[in-house]
Amino acid sequence: VLTEYPSFIGALAAFTSFGARLRGVALDEEGIEIQRLAEVLDGLPAAPKFLYINPYFHNPAGIIYSQERKQRLRELAEERDLMILEDDPYGELYFDQADRPLTLPIKASTGSEATVCYVGSFAKILGPGMRLGWLLAPPAIAEKCELAKQSTDACSSTFTQVLAHAFLAGGHLPGYLTMLRTTYRRRAGTMLAALKEHMPPQVTWTTPRGGFYVWVSMPETLDASRVFEASIARGAAFVIGSAFDPEGRRNNCFRLAFSHTPEEKIARGVEIIGDAVTAELHNV
Amino acid sequence: VLTEYPSFIGALAAFTSFGARLRGVALDEEGIEIQRLAEVLDGLPAAPKFLYINPYFHNPAGIIYSQERKQRLRELAEERDLMILEDDPYGELYFDQADRPLTLPIKASTGSEATVCYVGSFAKILGPGMRLGWLLAPPAIAEKCELAKQSTDACSSTFTQVLAHAFLAGGHLPGYLTMLRTTYRRRAGTMLAALKEHMPPQVTWTTPRGGFYVWVSMPETLDASRVFEASIARGAAFVIGSAFDPEGRRNNCFRLAFSHTPEEKIARGVEIIGDAVTAELHNV
Repeated sequence: VLTEYPSFIGALAAFTSFGARLRGVALDEEGIEIQRLAEVLDGLPAAPKFLYINPYFHNPAGIIYSQERKQRLRELAEERDLMILEDDPYGELYFDQADRPLTLPIKASTGSEATVCYVGSFAKILGPGMRLGWLLAPPAIAEKCELAKQSTDACSSTFTQVLAHAFLAGGHLPGYLTMLRTTYRRRAGTMLAALKEHMPPQVTWTTPRGGFYVWVSMPETLDASRVFEASIARGAAFVIGSAFDPEGRRNNCFRLAFSHTPEEKIARGVEIIGDAVTAELHNV
Repeated sequence: VLTEYPSFIGALAAFTSFGARLRGVALDEEGIEIQRLAEVLDGLPAAPKFLYINPYFHNPAGIIYSQERKQRLRELAEERDLMILEDDPYGELYFDQADRPLTLPIKASTGSEATVCYVGSFAKILGPGMRLGWLLAPPAIAEKCELAKQSTDACSSTFTQVLAHAFLAGGHLPGYLTMLRTTYRRRAGTMLAALKEHMPPQVTWTTPRGGFYVWVSMPETLDASRVFEASIARGAAFVIGSAFDPEGRRNNCFRLAFSHTPEEKIARGVEIIGDAVTAELHNV
């Protein structure tokens, strides 16, 4: 299985639990690096089962694919007969209405010959406790998935399905999303301002236009686990970068989430983490 | 994996989805046949991973293990180092308080050296839509299961966990169970009376003392699929026996459920199925 680097830890765990060997291809601010992806495909001993991507307000990188990058990925997928698993839990959470066209899934591209399986979720727009999502896939794959799901958990909770249906059928989702977008935009702004204030100049980070996350990159000599230990001792937590590395090695980055935390706590948390990074820079 | 014959279709599907080869050992009215189980163990080319049983108001057989049978199974399991997976979704649903001691799990036996993994569920006492259950297992197995579950579905719905907790913490379960026991006992009685009235003498069935099900056995020359077709055309449905056969062959039995259906419909449904069995007896 090919993935982005960094990539969503839950997907990596699901793939490896079925014995998959993982290979990560780096992301930049516009999406997966197409040239690098082509080179990796050339170098593989066998065709990968699929490429897993998280293009819209990426977990953990926080970025959104540019239209051009999506187009080039689609073309490469067609050319190489590469199946894409397009994971989209955050696409509705854009901060600016003008960015909405960027969230159009590859699955929704007209005239594409690429095989795309698209997965969506209520986890980030109604709540993770719902455990509800959906899949759009070619019939042969959808049938297999249905059988596998039936053998695994019989079915998703009908109780939370009824709740989600009532919420949608009652027309409550659009207003709720507007509220979420406003809240998350404000929290992201607070986090970005705090990063600018508290991080040493050697550290860089992504600027999210939606979603939950900021991805922070330190010089390669630094270890996020050591920064984590110093931060957690003073009450600030984050997820270390190696958790998001399909090859489990690189650990000079980390993921910050602004979604759940009130703004005053965000500012204080980033200050604590900034102090820990600064101390670590002086240590190495 | 060893199972009872008949056995729960959902468990059989879960085991086979992971590549298990299944072997069924017949049940009688007191539980799995111990002598037969010993013979099957002797004849296997390798030790089975575990024995899956559903001892308390069995799905689909409707029976409950006798104390003596449980004791003998435990002894055989100790002697042969056979791990037991004890599945208990129906144990709380006894019709008669006097039968309650029979529902004491093997897992709860003191002084047993047998390795037992015990699974319970809210599916049959609060509702299948909750998708909530529990596992009692040796730590090494519980840890593996936690990891596997995490990689499969991240976690069970926190929403339905909160509901189940509130229901239990509020002390509502005992009264609700009393209501369920009364309702299901009445429905079981209606079904048994209807079977006596409408089934031809060549047909036998189990007499449930709890749970949801009656297991009906026809002469071996009869095919439950044909009886099903004739019955469904007149509005009565059931599950054919081959679905519960780990080896997928035997189909002269079928499962009736009295749990969900009002009494007047139970009587009418059994009449329809009785007619279909009678007609089929005349056909073969």
